[in-house]
Amino acid sequence: MKGEAAFLEVIGRHFPGCSLGVGIGDDAAVIDIPSPAVVTTDVLIENVDFTRELPVRFIARKSLAANVSDLAAMGAVPHAFVCALGIPEWFEPGFETFTSELAAAAREARIELVGGDLSAADALTISITAIGRIAEGARPLLRSGARRGDRLFLSRPVGASAAGLALMTKGWRIFGDGSAAPPPHAGGLAFAHRELAASLLLRHAAPEAETALGAALARIPEVGACIDVSDGLALDLSRLLAASGCGAVVDWRRIPPFPDLVEGALALGIDVRASVLEGGEEYALLFTASATESELSSRLRRPVYAIGRITEGSGIILDRDGERTPLEPRGFDHFAR
Amino acid sequence: MKGEAAFLEVIGRHFPGCSLGVGIGDDAAVIDIPSPAVVTTDVLIENVDFTRELPVRFIARKSLAANVSDLAAMGAVPHAFVCALGIPEWFEPGFETFTSELAAAAREARIELVGGDLSAADALTISITAIGRIAEGARPLLRSGARRGDRLFLSRPVGASAAGLALMTKGWRIFGDGSAAPPPHAGGLAFAHRELAASLLLRHAAPEAETALGAALARIPEVGACIDVSDGLALDLSRLLAASGCGAVVDWRRIPPFPDLVEGALALGIDVRASVLEGGEEYALLFTASATESELSSRLRRPVYAIGRITEGSGIILDRDGERTPLEPRGFDHFAR
Repeated sequence: MKGEAAFLEVIGRHFPGCSLGVGIGDDAAVIDIPSPAVVTTDVLIENVDFTRELPVRFIARKSLAANVSDLAAMGAVPHAFVCALGIPEWFEPGFETFTSELAAAAREARIELVGGDLSAADALTISITAIGRIAEGARPLLRSGARRGDRLFLSRPVGASAAGLALMTKGWRIFGDGSAAPPPHAGGLAFAHRELAASLLLRHAAPEAETALGAALARIPEVGACIDVSDGLALDLSRLLAASGCGAVVDWRRIPPFPDLVEGALALGIDVRASVLEGGEEYALLFTASATESELSSRLRRPVYAIGRITEGSGIILDRDGERTPLEPRGFDHFAR
Repeated sequence: MKGEAAFLEVIGRHFPGCSLGVGIGDDAAVIDIPSPAVVTTDVLIENVDFTRELPVRFIARKSLAANVSDLAAMGAVPHAFVCALGIPEWFEPGFETFTSELAAAAREARIELVGGDLSAADALTISITAIGRIAEGARPLLRSGARRGDRLFLSRPVGASAAGLALMTKGWRIFGDGSAAPPPHAGGLAFAHRELAASLLLRHAAPEAETALGAALARIPEVGACIDVSDGLALDLSRLLAASGCGAVVDWRRIPPFPDLVEGALALGIDVRASVLEGGEEYALLFTASATESELSSRLRRPVYAIGRITEGSGIILDRDGERTPLEPRGFDHFAR
C-alpha cells in the first residue's frame, strides 16, 4: 500500500455506491433517515480489545458487531455507519481482507457504510459510529424501562465469548476459516474438546448481534428495559437496574450456559461462573417484560430465557438453589490496568 | 482516575443533559434530527495528528474543529456529536481540562454531545463523529458542484496552521493560555517575532471552523462546490476539481497569506509557499460561485477571496505574475511514512 489513495481504492471496490444519499467521497455523507435517529459509537484498540493473534476478518466482525448490538439493545433497525481507522504498518497486508469482511458483515446486518476517515497509527484502531432508525409501530428501548414485578430475560445462552477469550489467553489459536488449534503443550484431554474450543473461540472472534430480536422487542408493549451484554451479565444488569431505580433477583439455575460449556470446562480450564456472569462481548440482549417466558417465546417465535425478577431496592441478588447472596457488578473494565 | 466510572463522572459534570432526546447513559442516543442528516467522522491520533507537547485543551479544540469544519464544508448546521476516546495513562491528569474545553468548544459551535465510548490505549486517540442538518432554504454543498467559468474562492487568509506546525517542529512551545516560547537556542531575530509566532501557533493549536459561512453559502444559489482546507489548498482543490470534472487556474498573488506571515517568514524560518499551498488543518473553506468577489462579500457581509477560475480539463495551473505552471496536488498524507 502507498498512501491514503491506495486504501480508498480498496474501500471503493468493496463498498460501491450508497443507496441512502451522498456516501463516501465528500467532506461528509448526506443521508436520508427518519427521526428519531439512534446513534452509537464504539472504538476497538489493538492490545486492549483484541490482539494481532485474532485473524483480521474477525477483527472486522467484532468491530461492527459491537455497534450493531448497541442498536439492537435500543430496539433500532441498522441504517448507516461511518468507520474511522488508525492503521499501523503490520495491518496493511490485511487491509483488503478486513475491508471485504466488513462489507460482508454490513450486508448481513443491512447497514450501509456512508463515510470514514483514515490515519496512520502504531496500534490498530477501529472506531465505528452506527446510526439506526426506529421502525414503524416500535419505540426505543431504554435501560430505564424496568418495573418492579417484571420478569428479567436473557436472549440466549452465554459464557462462550469469555471462555473463548480465556482459551486465547491459554495459547489456543483460531484461524480465519474458523478452525482452532490447541497450544503446543496441551494435553489429550484438551485436544478431545477441540470442537467445543473452536465454537467458543468463534463466539469470541465473531460475536453476533441480536438485531432481529431487538427490533421485535421494540414492538411489544409489555417489554420494559433493554441492554446488551457487552461488559458482562452482572455489570450490564447493574447498569439497567441503576437506570430503572430497581433491584433484581437472578436464579442461577435458569441462566442458560453455552451448550457443552459446563461439560467441557474442567478439561479446557474454564471458569464457568465467571464466564457466564462476568464475560463481556456476548451481545445477548438482557431485557425486562411483564410477560411470561412462554408468552414471549411464542410471540417472538424463538426461545428467550426468564432468569429472574425485577424487585424494589437496588443491586442484584443471586439465588443458587435457595441460597441468596449479593452479586457484585463485576465485568469488563477497559481501565483495569 | 480509577476505572471507567471516574471518567464518566467528569463527562457528566461538563455535559449535563441533552436537549435533543436521549443522550449519554444508554446503549445509544436517540435524537431528533431533520432529514437529510449530514454525517462525518475524524480520528486524531497522538504522534500522527498531534504530540503531547500540545496542551490538552488545544487537543480538544482541534478534534472538534476537524469535524465541525467538515459539516461547514457541506453547508450543514452542527447538531450532535459522539466522541470515542482511547485514553493512555499520561492523559488521565489532563482529562478534566480536555473535557471542559471540549464542552466549551461544543457550546461555541452549538453542537451537543449525545454519546461516546471510552477505552484504554497506549496512544491518545480521539474519534469524533459529527451530525449536522441542512437549514431551511439551504441545500448540501458537494465537491462536485463546480462549473467551468465559476470563480474559485477562499474564505480567509491561509498558511498559519502549517507555519505554526513548523514552529513546533523547530522547538517553539505553545502554552494553555495561548502564549508562546521560542526554543532555547533561538536568536534575537526569532525572539523579536514572538507575537507573530504566538498567533501562528495558536492557529495551528486551535483552528476555527467556518461554521456560519458554510451555512450561509448553502443558501446562495450561485455557490457551486465547496470543500474545507484540511490537507492543504493544492490537495483539497485537486479533490474538488476531480469530483467536478474540471480544472482550475489559481492566481498566486490573490491567495491571501496570514497577516505578517510573509514579513516574518525569514526570521522564523518558515516556507511561505509550502505553508500557503500545502499546509493542512487550515479549515478555511474553498468554494466556487458564479458571482464576483464583491457581490459575494457584500451578500455575506464579510470578505471572501476570489483566487482563481474553474476551467475545462483537469488539474491546477498556478499563475505567478503571468508565468503559468502546473501545481502538484501535494499536501498532508497520513500515510507518508
